Amino acid sequence: VLDFGLRDERILTDRLRKSAVIPDGSPVVLGIGDDCAIYRPRGSADDLLFTSDTIVEGIHFERHSHKPAELGRKALTRSLSDIAAMGGVPRFCLVALCVPGWATDSQVNRFFDGVLALAAATGTVLAGGDLSHGERLFCDVTVGGSVPRGAALRRDGARAGNELYVSGQLGGSALGFATKKGKAWKRHRAPEARLALGQFLRGTLRATSAIDLSDGLSLDLRRLCLASGLAAQIVEPPRFPGASPEQALHGGEEYELLFTVREGMKVPARFGDLPLTRVGTIVRGTAGEVLLNGVPLTTLGYDHFSRARFVP
Amino acid sequence: VLDFGLRDERILTDRLRKSAVIPDGSPVVLGIGDDCAIYRPRGSADDLLFTSDTIVEGIHFERHSHKPAELGRKALTRSLSDIAAMGGVPRFCLVALCVPGWATDSQVNRFFDGVLALAAATGTVLAGGDLSHGERLFCDVTVGGSVPRGAALRRDGARAGNELYVSGQLGGSALGFATKKGKAWKRHRAPEARLALGQFLRGTLRATSAIDLSDGLSLDLRRLCLASGLAAQIVEPPRFPGASPEQALHGGEEYELLFTVREGMKVPARFGDLPLTRVGTIVRGTAGEVLLNGVPLTTLGYDHFSRARFVP
Repeated sequence: VLDFGLRDERILTDRLRKSAVIPDGSPVVLGIGDDCAIYRPRGSADDLLFTSDTIVEGIHFERHSHKPAELGRKALTRSLSDIAAMGGVPRFCLVALCVPGWATDSQVNRFFDGVLALAAATGTVLAGGDLSHGERLFCDVTVGGSVPRGAALRRDGARAGNELYVSGQLGGSALGFATKKGKAWKRHRAPEARLALGQFLRGTLRATSAIDLSDGLSLDLRRLCLASGLAAQIVEPPRFPGASPEQALHGGEEYELLFTVREGMKVPARFGDLPLTRVGTIVRGTAGEVLLNGVPLTTLGYDHFSRARFVP
Repeated sequence: VLDFGLRDERILTDRLRKSAVIPDGSPVVLGIGDDCAIYRPRGSADDLLFTSDTIVEGIHFERHSHKPAELGRKALTRSLSDIAAMGGVPRFCLVALCVPGWATDSQVNRFFDGVLALAAATGTVLAGGDLSHGERLFCDVTVGGSVPRGAALRRDGARAGNELYVSGQLGGSALGFATKKGKAWKRHRAPEARLALGQFLRGTLRATSAIDLSDGLSLDLRRLCLASGLAAQIVEPPRFPGASPEQALHGGEEYELLFTVREGMKVPARFGDLPLTRVGTIVRGTAGEVLLNGVPLTTLGYDHFSRARFVP
């Protein structure tokens, strides 16, 4: 048993969730604990979704591992993926960037080229942010999105008997990070947020819950199960060509969507080019427990806060 | 003439403002260039305000200069002050924190104690964020707030003939930073966001424009004048006890409000304990030019991005 104390993100977020009370009548419908917070504007037909994700030099990437435009794109993708997981339409972003001394003006410009190209492609207006100088590159991207009132896909909506699906093929990002080669390396450097899929899951498929695979299937599925107070039985997920079973089960930064639907719901085999694969079932049991082919699955997703494999 | 290239925040933000086009029909009413972005939710009686502000170890503070709870409080105050400047009511915040190796669990807890205490006192729900590890402390706080639809105080609303006012006494934060002593040092470490004043300016006084003094009167007044396409004539502002005229004119991190009202509007001498002082008049002239007692005032506010005194 490892003990990270507060360096275990979950202990700290649990403390913050308990401390960050939402008063009666607050327009904040959902606070800490899902991919996005939910805000209900007075009189509006929409709920708004808010998320913030950071990339830190030396933790999420190394100085020479990504081109500047890739980094900008990835920084925005991480937050867009949270909007996708809740079925939202992204509306705007705020970019807080701390520029290190090693970065040239041209690199800063190309970083924002990457942000702006993806922002334009997804209808996300760059509406503000903050610029600072520092020793290490640090970038925090906040995205605001919208969903019809009450319709956001949440982690806590899964029910016993729901069928569990995943988009895409898993393990490519971890494989690429390990090998720095080929399509897997490109996948690691240029992941995509599944925005259209998320809106399809919410609007057409009426999915009951969803989460994006940012930290690995085993950890993110555990989070979904914990939020819903249930367990899951799974088989091996579809693998990216060349990825190991462990990379597919535990590798992070996939940004595919894991979602649940009502029993018997007809899910298409593909959404555009993207395969949708049944990987299991939500069941009653110890909250958060995941059985792979009947055997308890160890949770090994990456925890960027503790910089350690996460072992609850 | 100094040339920072992109390290001059204004050159980069000007480029981003031009690139970050807001499409017709977007719910984003106002993007880059004011204290907050403005978002108009479909059908809502409110507009929403969004701002993001960062503190970076070694740039905005040194490791031993602030207690952890003070840092947490200050990180939130900076963003709340942007909400105050637009007359908004803060609703929620997202806190992205990068925790350096030197920080103990207790320090991280006390940092969030500072955030949570101020959040509770101002009705701001801590609704999410992101936690990471890193070499340097970095914290980005996004705050969302609300104002009645169309009522946000903006930088660009000043008109020729408008009277210019400032809250409080200026220079205390710069004095405290220099001396590390007494009330001025406390003022530097624990500034206040003027939320109630901002709401009073918007609702009761019908101020025509406002900005918060985060980077110094000379720089922030120049920004207000540039946004409004006008110039200003001022006298010396009220000084914090012991502060020099230069500290009062150019010192940053005051978080007082600078605002304009229609000619002849009756402005009370105090708002609660806070003095409100007439410091000048908005006039036609070269956009952004500020005359102090008839002499052009050099803009010397601190630019955290270029880490240099800002000389346009």
